[in-house]
Amino acid sequence: MKVLGIVGYSGAGKTTLLCALLPLLCARGLRVAAIKATHHDVRWDQPGKDSWRLQEAGAEPVLLAGPKRWYLSRAAAPGDWAAQLATLQPVPDLVLSEGNTDWPVPRLLVHRAALGKPLRRFAGDQVLAVATDAAIETDLPCLDLNDPPSIARFLLTWYGE
Amino acid sequence: MKVLGIVGYSGAGKTTLLCALLPLLCARGLRVAAIKATHHDVRWDQPGKDSWRLQEAGAEPVLLAGPKRWYLSRAAAPGDWAAQLATLQPVPDLVLSEGNTDWPVPRLLVHRAALGKPLRRFAGDQVLAVATDAAIETDLPCLDLNDPPSIARFLLTWYGE
Repeated sequence: MKVLGIVGYSGAGKTTLLCALLPLLCARGLRVAAIKATHHDVRWDQPGKDSWRLQEAGAEPVLLAGPKRWYLSRAAAPGDWAAQLATLQPVPDLVLSEGNTDWPVPRLLVHRAALGKPLRRFAGDQVLAVATDAAIETDLPCLDLNDPPSIARFLLTWYGE
Repeated sequence: MKVLGIVGYSGAGKTTLLCALLPLLCARGLRVAAIKATHHDVRWDQPGKDSWRLQEAGAEPVLLAGPKRWYLSRAAAPGDWAAQLATLQPVPDLVLSEGNTDWPVPRLLVHRAALGKPLRRFAGDQVLAVATDAAIETDLPCLDLNDPPSIARFLLTWYGE
């Protein structure tokens, strides 16, 4: 299981890029999971629903198993990136992790010129490449943000290494 | 990890009993998970939301990680009770599984007289006891459906065996 972070400023288009890459990577036979970090206190269910009642009563975790999809709700383990990865069942080939800038994994940096911000800096040398829609000054490999197939090819090469 | 099925006709009060038992069992130090089977095609998320978009794009599974809770959405593995149990992270001490009548696990049968139905029958001898609100003819141990603490004590004894 390889893990790649998709990082960049809010509004750079990380989710949109992910949604363009996923079908291209899946078409190559990869089972690709997505992890999305959010600062919102997301709720899975509505107060009064059975699954919500079970959670409120102390069940940990709660699994709601429908005929097409299963939904697991569990308490967060703050900062524990390994625990997030361990939660992934079935185990994928590749994990695309959006917004977890502090994870010790290789990253694809998404940059959009219209945001008017400088290239986001990260400690270490863990940035594989920049996906950008403008010519920028950087020593990093640059990929065309508007050409997801070329980015998918880059990632497949990296995955196969 | 022990697994107990909570079975009975719809309307017998399975979820209500579960919600009464959970705090009692948790107070004894057990980490108790709940699995609820549903015939509804539940949706975790709304069309247009990022996590929904990632799922529609082919990510499998999708983990939405908020500051308090994490939510995992994955494709169902029809009929695969072992796969449902393997999904439970963190691994609990006890799993209370509601409505999965076909699982090869011990069961607590919930019976409510007002439904006007005969005692539900199950193949094999895997029913531990009946939680009922009426005097019924049965060879099975009977527990008072309206006295969750007594049912919790019964389950703790069974758990410790």
